This record gives sequence, structure tokens and C-alpha cells, in this order.
Amino acid sequence: MNTILVVGSVALDTVKTPAGSIADGLGGSATYFSLAARYFAPIQLVGVVGEDFPREHRTLLTERGIGCSGLKTAKGKTFRWSGRYGKDANNAKTLATHLNVFKEFRPKLEDAHRKAPVLFLANIDPELQSEVLAQMKSPALVACDTMNFWIDSKPEALKELLSKVDVFFANEEEAEKLAHRPNPLQAAEVISSWGPSVVVIKKGEHGALMKVGSRFYIFPPFPLPEIKDPTGAGDTFAGGFLGYLASCGVYDDVGHLKRAMAYGSVMASFNVEDFSTRNIENLDRDRIDERFHDLLDRMSVPRTDELLKSRRVVAA
Amino acid sequence: MNTILVVGSVALDTVKTPAGSIADGLGGSATYFSLAARYFAPIQLVGVVGEDFPREHRTLLTERGIGCSGLKTAKGKTFRWSGRYGKDANNAKTLATHLNVFKEFRPKLEDAHRKAPVLFLANIDPELQSEVLAQMKSPALVACDTMNFWIDSKPEALKELLSKVDVFFANEEEAEKLAHRPNPLQAAEVISSWGPSVVVIKKGEHGALMKVGSRFYIFPPFPLPEIKDPTGAGDTFAGGFLGYLASCGVYDDVGHLKRAMAYGSVMASFNVEDFSTRNIENLDRDRIDERFHDLLDRMSVPRTDELLKSRRVVAA
Repeated sequence: MNTILVVGSVALDTVKTPAGSIADGLGGSATYFSLAARYFAPIQLVGVVGEDFPREHRTLLTERGIGCSGLKTAKGKTFRWSGRYGKDANNAKTLATHLNVFKEFRPKLEDAHRKAPVLFLANIDPELQSEVLAQMKSPALVACDTMNFWIDSKPEALKELLSKVDVFFANEEEAEKLAHRPNPLQAAEVISSWGPSVVVIKKGEHGALMKVGSRFYIFPPFPLPEIKDPTGAGDTFAGGFLGYLASCGVYDDVGHLKRAMAYGSVMASFNVEDFSTRNIENLDRDRIDERFHDLLDRMSVPRTDELLKSRRVVAA
Repeated sequence: MNTILVVGSVALDTVKTPAGSIADGLGGSATYFSLAARYFAPIQLVGVVGEDFPREHRTLLTERGIGCSGLKTAKGKTFRWSGRYGKDANNAKTLATHLNVFKEFRPKLEDAHRKAPVLFLANIDPELQSEVLAQMKSPALVACDTMNFWIDSKPEALKELLSKVDVFFANEEEAEKLAHRPNPLQAAEVISSWGPSVVVIKKGEHGALMKVGSRFYIFPPFPLPEIKDPTGAGDTFAGGFLGYLASCGVYDDVGHLKRAMAYGSVMASFNVEDFSTRNIENLDRDRIDERFHDLLDRMSVPRTDELLKSRRVVAA
């Protein structure tokens, strides 16, 4: 099995949404990613927490099989984020960000981690992302994410990083801002010219699109009647996507990449059904695959030959 | 071949978008619908225009094989609509509406029209839509559309109509307003409880969803790098959808309905690539089917057995 190394934040999140709220819940990009990806492949997490990080959170991660030798405890407090979502689940309003121990985060990889075939550089300073990448020993697949803060403050460092990654994940607005283009298709066009052979643009409740080579592929979202907490949707999407690819060991085939997109949607859909990481802590691969096949059924359009084989009447 | 009878507006539209503008261009819900649906099935159009309606517009419709014996010319001016689109192609700002001859529109169907197997009640007063439906001789499929104006002014007449139709098309915001629900899935749930066995919710550049019986199906939009003029997208969607179903003569099968959704997306995507009806006047079925198959390729996710058969590398 192909191990995925993820470098990113582990945090305590305080979140309000129209469906409720949570204080100091387990969060962070590396946390969400790991909890989603571990259903598919072995995960090694590199990050930092403070002395106040609850023991039960670390226990949760290790009991779920996530390698935590790279999750250091530093003097001080854990990274905290606080935000609120209104009716539009695609946009969080940040109320407070306390970097705390995360401010001094300079990941130095263990030898074993440097050999991981798949690397996910979750949303941190693009200069740090490049430093981590430079420590790796020829990974088969490198993917990264980012956020508005880095697009505004360090666009050149981010572009430099993008010239060295295979897969880039971004929200619609982030991609448009980074590329200075008015829509996600044009933005993906520009971004892929900087390096990544695969550009994934996430549109939240409106689905996602993927540019591979010169071609766009399009994906509807799994239909959910209610979204409780959108936090972590992007990272669990990346977790399902990269987890699936790592489990196959195939990184350059369009068919596998399309299935990876569907697994990404499925993991994100589970995640947003409850606060914090609650709903992705105790899934199993059968439930994930069940929703995966359900998604495929809902989005598949039969070719003519398939049409003649199966008829399902409206009244069913 | 199964004839489709469409009753709706024929108009002259003045439209501004970020891509340009057009004055007194051919428009109207019945026009857009007919020009899209006629690639699939025979169309009979029922509507009214004024004495100022340009002869070349009527010629265009008849030369495209659209039956215009029901398109009456009344004393006065043709219905005119004027609107502007900003960056958000999903929302038009109406600048002016002059109903003109359309104010007195009371369609009385010819005998031949009453026997049409498929009826599309395009966006007009829901009381008129019901009156038209009452004149029909047991159509196999009845579909309707509406708009915010009727949802606000005649919600009860609209609900009464919905209890008698098979397929209801609505925009996301229209559906949410009509059903008093915060999202399209919940809205479709409520609306289908009033009657329609198929509820189609169009999300513009974000795709569409379809509720059939108790199940939701989801569709991404055809990826377009630029939208020139969104006017008529909904009616051309309905044209592709109903045109395809009429061409098959199958109205109750999920597989056919899914393909109808894809043909709807394809016709809408052609339509928004140019102003007024320009881009849907001179298509042919080969070009339509080419984009249909292109769409299916972009949105299809391979099952495991298909995955093993075909590999397309990223660099392709």
C-alpha cells in the first residue's frame, strides 16, 4: 500500500452555522485530510499542537491508524480558528485566528517520511510547503491546497510551488483570485500553465471540476438536503481523492482520476453532515463505497445500449 | 413522430451582458423552446405577435419547420422585454417589460393542436396555462415552466396547475420561493408533493437536478469558458429535454429522463454562446449529438470493469 504523507494544520475550531455550533472541536487541514484518506491508504501526519491539545484527540487519530510520530507537541497553545457560516455554505466568515504554536512550525521530516510515494501539502505558508517538498525523495505524486490568505500575501511563492506539484486543489473563488480570471474554467487554464497537470476546482455545494491535460471534466455534488458544518469539506475531498489514487497506485489515468473525484465528493459529503470530524471518525469502507455507487447511479447518463437493457419507471 | 405543442411568448428582446448587447432580437419562451426542440420532434407553436413583428422572424421559424398556424398576429405591438446581466449569468435585471399584444393573449387551440401527445406550457399566466391544458385531448406528457412574477402574484393558480402536470421546470431561486424552502432539494420535495412526478431544478452555470419519484439525480453543466447571453437558457433546456423524450415516445423511464437532462444541458449550452437565438438557428443533429457525447464523456465516472479496459494518460 502506498503511504500518504500529509503536512498541515491540526487545530481546535469554534464554529457557528445555521444548524448549531461547536467550541474547540477537533479541526485543521491535516486532521480532516487524514481522517478521510485513512479509509484508503496508510497515512503519516506531520504537524504541531500545543500542550493544551486534548489527549483524546491524539488518541482518536492514532486509534484510527494515522501515523502521528510527526505530530509534535510544542510549548504553548494549539492553533485555534473560529468562524461562522451563513446561508451560503461556500463562504466562512473568520471571526478569529490564533496561530499560537503553528507560528513557529518548520517541519523537518523523518527519514521514513521522506520516502512516502504520495505527498499532500495541506494549506500552510507556500514557502513552508516548498521546504517540505524539497526534503522528499522523488515522490510519485505531489498535491497541494492553499487559501486566500496566501494568495494575497505570497502569490509568487505559491506560483513557485505550483511549478513543482502534480495536483492543485482550490476553491472557485481562490482559483479566480490567484489566476485573475472571472470564472473557474479560465482560472484552471491559467493555473495549469504554471505546472500542475491536474487542477481540481471545488465549487462546494455546486460540485467540482477537474482539468487534466487540456480537457475539463465536470462533477455534480452528492445531493444533501442539509449541510450542518462545511468546515473541512475541501480537505476531506482531497483525502478521498488522494486516498483512492494511493490505494490504486495509479496517478496518471483519467479514469482513475474521475473515480478519485467521486470519492472526494463522497468523503466531503459525509463530513459536512455533522460538526467537526464527528461524521468521518467512524465510517467504514462499505458505507463509503455504498455512497460512491449511489453517487454514480445518480449522475450516470445511460448510453443507448445500456438504455435498452434497464427500464425504471417514474412511479418506482 | 410525436408532435410537441408549445404555448408561450414570442418577443423582441433588448439585452445587455458583459459580452455585448442586442436590440429587439428575436426572443420569447416559445421561440427559444421551439428552435431547440425542433431538432428532435415536430413542433407546433401557439402565441401572438404584433403587426410590427419582423417578417424575417416568422420566416425563420417556418423555414426551420416550426408549425406557426397558431402564431397569431394581433393589432398592436409585439411583446418586448429588456434586461441586463452582470457577472452572475444566473440573474437578469429586468429593465422594462411591455406586454403589448401579449396582454390580451387567450389561446384557443385548433383541433389538430388539441391532439398533440406532448404539451409544453411555457412561462405565461398560470390561469392561462390551465385553460390551455383544459383544451387538450389526453396528452401523454404535460410540462410547464413559470417565473418569479407568477410565483409572487398567483401562487394558488400555479399550485392548481402543478397538480395536473407531469414535469415542472424551475430555476433554483424560483423553486425555493415557491416552496418556501432554503435549498433546491427541499424545494423539489415540497413541489413534487403537489403533483409533478418529475421536478427539474435548473441552477444555470451550476448544472441541474431532477427529482423522479422519491429520488434525486444530479447533472453538472457543460463547461463553457464564456457565456455571452444567458437569455433563453431555461427554455432551450426544456426544448432539448422534451424534444428528446418526444423523439423516443418514452416518458416514464429514468434512463430516458437522464438522457433528456443531458440533451437539455447541451441545447442550453449552445444557446448561451451567442445573443438571441443566433446560435441555435443553424445547428444540426450531428453537432448536437457530438456535444451530447462529449458531455457524457466529461461527466462519466467509470465502473471498475470499464476502468480496466481503457487508460488515458494525463499527458494526452
